[in-house]
Amino acid sequence: MTAPLRIGILGLGTVGASVFQALHLHGTAIAKRSGRTMRVTAVSARDRKRDRGIDVSGVEWFDNPVALASSDHVDCVVELIGGADGTAKEAVEAALSSGKHVITANKALLAKHGSALVALAERHQVALNFEAAVAGGIPIVKTLRESLAGNQVTRVSGILNGTCNYILSRMELEGLTFDACLADAQRLGYAEADPTFDVGGFDTAHKLSILASLAFGTAIDADAVYVEGIASITPLDLVMADELGYRIKLLGVAERTATGIEQRVHPTMVPKGWAIAQVMGVTNAVNVAADPVGELTLVGPGAGGNATASSVLSDCVDIARGIVLPPLGMAASALAVLDRAPMQRHEGGYYIRLAARDRPGAAAGIATRMAEQSISLESIVQKRPPASRAADPTGKSGEPVPVVLITYATTEEAIRKALDAMIADGHIAEPPQLIRIERG
Amino acid sequence: MTAPLRIGILGLGTVGASVFQALHLHGTAIAKRSGRTMRVTAVSARDRKRDRGIDVSGVEWFDNPVALASSDHVDCVVELIGGADGTAKEAVEAALSSGKHVITANKALLAKHGSALVALAERHQVALNFEAAVAGGIPIVKTLRESLAGNQVTRVSGILNGTCNYILSRMELEGLTFDACLADAQRLGYAEADPTFDVGGFDTAHKLSILASLAFGTAIDADAVYVEGIASITPLDLVMADELGYRIKLLGVAERTATGIEQRVHPTMVPKGWAIAQVMGVTNAVNVAADPVGELTLVGPGAGGNATASSVLSDCVDIARGIVLPPLGMAASALAVLDRAPMQRHEGGYYIRLAARDRPGAAAGIATRMAEQSISLESIVQKRPPASRAADPTGKSGEPVPVVLITYATTEEAIRKALDAMIADGHIAEPPQLIRIERG
Repeated sequence: MTAPLRIGILGLGTVGASVFQALHLHGTAIAKRSGRTMRVTAVSARDRKRDRGIDVSGVEWFDNPVALASSDHVDCVVELIGGADGTAKEAVEAALSSGKHVITANKALLAKHGSALVALAERHQVALNFEAAVAGGIPIVKTLRESLAGNQVTRVSGILNGTCNYILSRMELEGLTFDACLADAQRLGYAEADPTFDVGGFDTAHKLSILASLAFGTAIDADAVYVEGIASITPLDLVMADELGYRIKLLGVAERTATGIEQRVHPTMVPKGWAIAQVMGVTNAVNVAADPVGELTLVGPGAGGNATASSVLSDCVDIARGIVLPPLGMAASALAVLDRAPMQRHEGGYYIRLAARDRPGAAAGIATRMAEQSISLESIVQKRPPASRAADPTGKSGEPVPVVLITYATTEEAIRKALDAMIADGHIAEPPQLIRIERG
Repeated sequence: MTAPLRIGILGLGTVGASVFQALHLHGTAIAKRSGRTMRVTAVSARDRKRDRGIDVSGVEWFDNPVALASSDHVDCVVELIGGADGTAKEAVEAALSSGKHVITANKALLAKHGSALVALAERHQVALNFEAAVAGGIPIVKTLRESLAGNQVTRVSGILNGTCNYILSRMELEGLTFDACLADAQRLGYAEADPTFDVGGFDTAHKLSILASLAFGTAIDADAVYVEGIASITPLDLVMADELGYRIKLLGVAERTATGIEQRVHPTMVPKGWAIAQVMGVTNAVNVAADPVGELTLVGPGAGGNATASSVLSDCVDIARGIVLPPLGMAASALAVLDRAPMQRHEGGYYIRLAARDRPGAAAGIATRMAEQSISLESIVQKRPPASRAADPTGKSGEPVPVVLITYATTEEAIRKALDAMIADGHIAEPPQLIRIERG
């Protein structure tokens, strides 16, 4: 056995403490597998006094993470600070520049500065491992970088944000509103005080941009991701989805199409029979379609100290075993620029819910606008809510009526044009709801 | 770039042809990822003239696989011959002994001779990769050996045989008998002319013994696997399972228990909500429970040329990248002897279907025998089939009545004793059906 791998941990929150504890409790078992002892020799966190349930005596303490990252007493730096810029970036750069391996769970950092950091790691011939940055405990990074290295990936899609999936699952199962479920998620610690980053789809977009790079051999391009969040989803949408055989999930989808590579994050109707539709609560799932393998689906815990620690440990073991691969699966210089498919050219089915004004000609007007754009309809459901029916049995009040249309495959552009025309016609009382359908 | 990795393929069936074709069509893309060109330089198969849809001109042909395995013109041998002994074993031994890397899809070979072959590979410091040997295109070998190397695995379970899952899925969905579905599976090429190896559970047992070794750091011990096949499952069992909220799957389960490591293969009732229950047809799935990650589930194609080729290619890329790990995740000398848990000590819930004689005292007698073994019942369902009810509305014929019992957790020993006593009492007209319940 060679000398122990000396690990420095930046950030001692739940993930950092869990990694520390696992190496402490199971170090011998892990060393049997990795062929090399690993030892946490340095840590850095904000508050030295806080009780984290771990014994850091005998471990070098750094108040300054960047100083730890540059220390000669460490071979491998685990960055768990977070944030796309600032200390995390400085520390990772310092570690790589001084020839240390880096493990990070920081998707925001990679989404924004991934290409530069990857090149820096390669220049210093060190590892930059980030299994924990995407889908928590699910080993999707290694699966794309290694297990599918002989495949041509055509699509990666997944539930990559546990907060959103928790909210949508509860909305569906209990018929609650988005706001009520978000408040619960915040109370339970599944959502931040400012939830925008999660429910707005931005966290999913960061993760997706990393997966797309691994899948397609392209430089990370998070700016090219089309992003919609879940705040507009209503209980009625979930009921309609159920009736039509779908569930609504916030999916990240990266796909090779005739017009380039699409990267998009939006609420999505997925057929109930699809493996991803079964994934409820804070669990994550990733589906990969590739040739020759066909389809693989990986399901597991997407967040939390333990799940994330598992991925960090996997990255540690790789380094202890001497495995140093190009972080994005091929040399940084070999990564192509992402050929961005314009969202307007996206093709697929659509769920459209309209609040149609209840007056003569509205239905005909709506149908005509769809026909003008050559959009074929698979289903049309017009449903007055029971309460409205009871209040106005003859339907003379003119109160808007929800109309749901499911289209066959068409383009985003055609849908947008049809909706704009309907709005201009005055047939619609509220902004239309539009949810893309993914048929798997 | 270093010199190309020279690959020799033994066996040009659908998998071999698919590997050959993928390297031919996508060699450049794969080389970008692996950092080294791979070239098939030698092949061996039975019939040189057969049209396989691939162009083997310019590739060295060997009539004798063992001669290829010893050739100086090859760096890496892909063994796709199959069989636990004979040519496959000879060729793999010859390749390893002459310092060549070996990739094999041969679970029977590994189940029987894995420990010896692994030691041989280590002695010659070459890779012995076998991602394709378990669960086809699902990267479960790398997941256990690498991604979960920092975890303590407590249980691995899965649907590891597509033939059995296809048969059970069709029986369930269409209400057909085992024999009818088996005949269909044979017609469609999903089952062999002699199906014993698949439907008897032996193929699953081979794969499970490999997974258990990777999961628990123990030497492969296929003889220690308890095996039951699916031939005894009836349409009535599937109907009852459905009513009680379960599906029936042939599972392989390897689990660390208080009495040692259980390895068992048998038809299993799994709750419908469990991810594995959703897996239908020839698809495979593996679930791993481990600390700290929690639970991971991987779903994908379990067989077929393309899926298996994907795993072979992954193994090739690892070798081209210079990754040579201990095949079972730790040095052969560090593998423990498997501490075999006796099946009699297995604890879990049971589904028991009895053909109870329709006579006074039968129900009481059955209940007494269960109580004597301290077995608590979660459900009791007594159901005369509609046809029998119609023929004999008063129930005076004495025709046996199906009684289904679902027990709370108990031991295999207690169940066996209770059933033996009931049989001795003469309350039961046919051998009882017993299906273990896995609650996930």
